[in-house]
Amino acid sequence: MKQKLIFTNLVGETLDTLVDSLGTPQVVIVADTNTAGLVLPLLVNDSATAAAARVITVSAGDENKNLDGLTSLWQQLQQLEATRATVVVNLGGGMVSDMGGFAAATYKRGMRCINIPTTVLAAVDASVGGKTGINFNGLKNQLGSFTEPEAAIISSIYFNTLPQQQILSGYAEMLKHGLLEDRATLGKLLTYSPVYPLTDTEALLPLIEASVGVKARIVEEDMTESGIRKALNLGHTCGHAIESLAVSRGAAVPHGYAVAWGLVVALVLSHLQAGFGTDTLHKVSDYVLRNYGAYNITCDDYPALIAAMRQDKKNRSADSISFTLLEDVGRPRIDCTVSPEQIGAALDIYRDLMHIA
Amino acid sequence: MKQKLIFTNLVGETLDTLVDSLGTPQVVIVADTNTAGLVLPLLVNDSATAAAARVITVSAGDENKNLDGLTSLWQQLQQLEATRATVVVNLGGGMVSDMGGFAAATYKRGMRCINIPTTVLAAVDASVGGKTGINFNGLKNQLGSFTEPEAAIISSIYFNTLPQQQILSGYAEMLKHGLLEDRATLGKLLTYSPVYPLTDTEALLPLIEASVGVKARIVEEDMTESGIRKALNLGHTCGHAIESLAVSRGAAVPHGYAVAWGLVVALVLSHLQAGFGTDTLHKVSDYVLRNYGAYNITCDDYPALIAAMRQDKKNRSADSISFTLLEDVGRPRIDCTVSPEQIGAALDIYRDLMHIA
Repeated sequence: MKQKLIFTNLVGETLDTLVDSLGTPQVVIVADTNTAGLVLPLLVNDSATAAAARVITVSAGDENKNLDGLTSLWQQLQQLEATRATVVVNLGGGMVSDMGGFAAATYKRGMRCINIPTTVLAAVDASVGGKTGINFNGLKNQLGSFTEPEAAIISSIYFNTLPQQQILSGYAEMLKHGLLEDRATLGKLLTYSPVYPLTDTEALLPLIEASVGVKARIVEEDMTESGIRKALNLGHTCGHAIESLAVSRGAAVPHGYAVAWGLVVALVLSHLQAGFGTDTLHKVSDYVLRNYGAYNITCDDYPALIAAMRQDKKNRSADSISFTLLEDVGRPRIDCTVSPEQIGAALDIYRDLMHIA
Repeated sequence: MKQKLIFTNLVGETLDTLVDSLGTPQVVIVADTNTAGLVLPLLVNDSATAAAARVITVSAGDENKNLDGLTSLWQQLQQLEATRATVVVNLGGGMVSDMGGFAAATYKRGMRCINIPTTVLAAVDASVGGKTGINFNGLKNQLGSFTEPEAAIISSIYFNTLPQQQILSGYAEMLKHGLLEDRATLGKLLTYSPVYPLTDTEALLPLIEASVGVKARIVEEDMTESGIRKALNLGHTCGHAIESLAVSRGAAVPHGYAVAWGLVVALVLSHLQAGFGTDTLHKVSDYVLRNYGAYNITCDDYPALIAAMRQDKKNRSADSISFTLLEDVGRPRIDCTVSPEQIGAALDIYRDLMHIA
C-alpha cells in the first residue's frame, strides 16, 4: 500500500499534524448532508485545520453519487479558488470518499486527499485500493480512477452518529474478515457488541485495524482478482440471494444483514462439505441471531434463492453454484461446487440455527 | 518516459501490430469532425484494426473540449459496451487526445489508449507527459489527469490534410526546439519548407522525432518546472504579447505564427545581451519572414507589447521583464532580466529584419 493508514481516535490532532506536513495553502472539507451536521462539528472542535477549512456539502446517499454531484463539486472547488496544492479532506462514508476522491483526482489534473471514514463499512472496506468514482447512466461506479489518498485517518469515535443498521451492516464485513483470519481475531469480534449506542468505541478501533489488515493482506496476495481474493466473497453468494428475495418481497434488507445471514449459510455448507467445526458454527450463528435477528425463509423460498445464486456474477457454470467455503477459521477454500440439493440441506440447517419454525 | 513513442509512416501496420500485442477484444477510435472525414479513411485503408473498429466522432475545436463533449464520449463508450479491456485510439490533434484520453482514463477507472496525432503541434508537443483534460467553466484544461497512453504512433503522412496555417503553427515550435538543441538540428529545420502541399512528408518525420527528443530531454531534466524547463518559453514572452496585440486589433493570429515572430525578437535580445551570433539570427529571421511573413508593428505599439510582456504569468517582477535567451544555439540562459528600453531597441531591430518600414 502506498497510502498511509493511520488508526487513531485522536482524529483532529492527527489531521492537524498531517496537514502541516503536507504544506498546503488551503484545506477543503467534503462532507455529505449527514456528516456535515453530525460529524463536522465534532471534528471542528478537535482540529484547528478543520475549523479554518472551507466546507463543500454534497447530498447524502448513493443515488447522489452521480455526474451532477461531481460537477457541483468541481464548480465549488473552482469557486473556492482551489489549486493543485489544495488538500481535500473527505469526511463521510464510501459515497463521500468515492465522489470527493474522484473530484480531487481530476481537478487541475489532481489534488491531494485525506480520507476520514465515518462509517464502519467505509473504515473497513473502502480504505484499501484507492478506488474513486461515481455512478453513471444507471451503472455503479462506471466512471472513476485508481487514486490513493495521501492518508486515511481511521477512527471509531464517529460511529455513534450512525443509525444502528449501518453499524451492524459494516460489522458483518468485519465478521467475515475474522472468519478468514484466525480464531483470536474472530473471538474478539464475537465478544464485542456493536449495538447502538456503542458503549466502548475505543475497543472497536483495534478490531477495525485487524479487519483492514485482513483485507489488505488478501488483496495484496491477489492483485488479479482471480484467486485468493475470492475468499472475500465468503457469505456473499447466499447474502446476495437473500437481498434479491427481500427486494422481491417488497421489503429490502441492509446489505450487511444479508451478508451476516449468508455467512451462516456458508458456514453450514463449510461444515457439510469441508469439515468446518460445529462449535464455531454455533458461536457465529448465535451471534448473528442475537444481533441481526433471523431472516425468515420457508422451503417455498428455496427455488428463488437458488435461482438467484446461479445468477451471481461470480458464478461460472449454470448447473452448479460456486461458493467460497472454510475448512476452518482462516482456511478458505475457493471455487467450491455445490449442488441445489446441498444448498437445500444447508438452508434447512440455517432455519434450525435461526430458530425458524 | 513510460509511454512508447513510435515514429513511423507505416501507421496502419504499426497500429495492427500494437493492438495485437495488447490483446484487446474491442477497439474504439475517437476522431473529431475533421479527422473523421479526412484522416480516418486513410487509416482504415491501411489498417484492419481501424477498419473493424467502432468510431466515436466529437465536434472539432478547442471550444468543444468541455464537459458536454466528455459526457457524450462516456455515453457512447457505454453504448458500445466498452469494457476496461477496450483500447481507445485517439485520432486527431491535441483536442482529441486530451478529451479522448481523459474519457479513457476515467471510464471504468481506466482503459488503455493509443494516440495517433494528426497535427504537427500534437505530434511535437502533446506526445510527452501524459496530460489529458478538458476546459471547464471558462478555464483551460481545468479538469483532467496525468495518464500516459500505451503508445503514440507519430507520423507525418497526415499533415497534408491540415490547413497551411496549422502546419506552420506547429513548425514554429519545432524551430524553437532546434534553437534549443544544436546547429545541426536547426540547420535541417531551416532547409525544410513546411508549405502546403508538403512535397516531402517523409523528410519531415526525422525532424519531428528530433523535436520530440529535445522536449522530452528538457522536461526530463526538470520535472519541477522551476529550472531548465523555462528554456521552452523561448520566443513565447514576446509571442504572447503579439497575440494579445493582434486580438486587441480585432485580427487574431495563430499561436505558432506569434511564436515565430517572438523567436526573432528573442534572438535579437540574445544578440544584444548574450552574444548570440548575427549569422544565425539572420538565417532564422529570413526563414520566418519567408514562411510566416512579417507581423507589422510601429513604435506606437511598443507600450502595449511591453505591458503585455509584464503581465506574462511566468514573469516574477513588475519592474523588469524576464526572458529566456540564448548565448548560442543549444545554450539557453533562463531568467534574463530585460528593461523596457532594451525591448524597444530589440523591436526596432525586429522591424528592420522583417523589412517593416
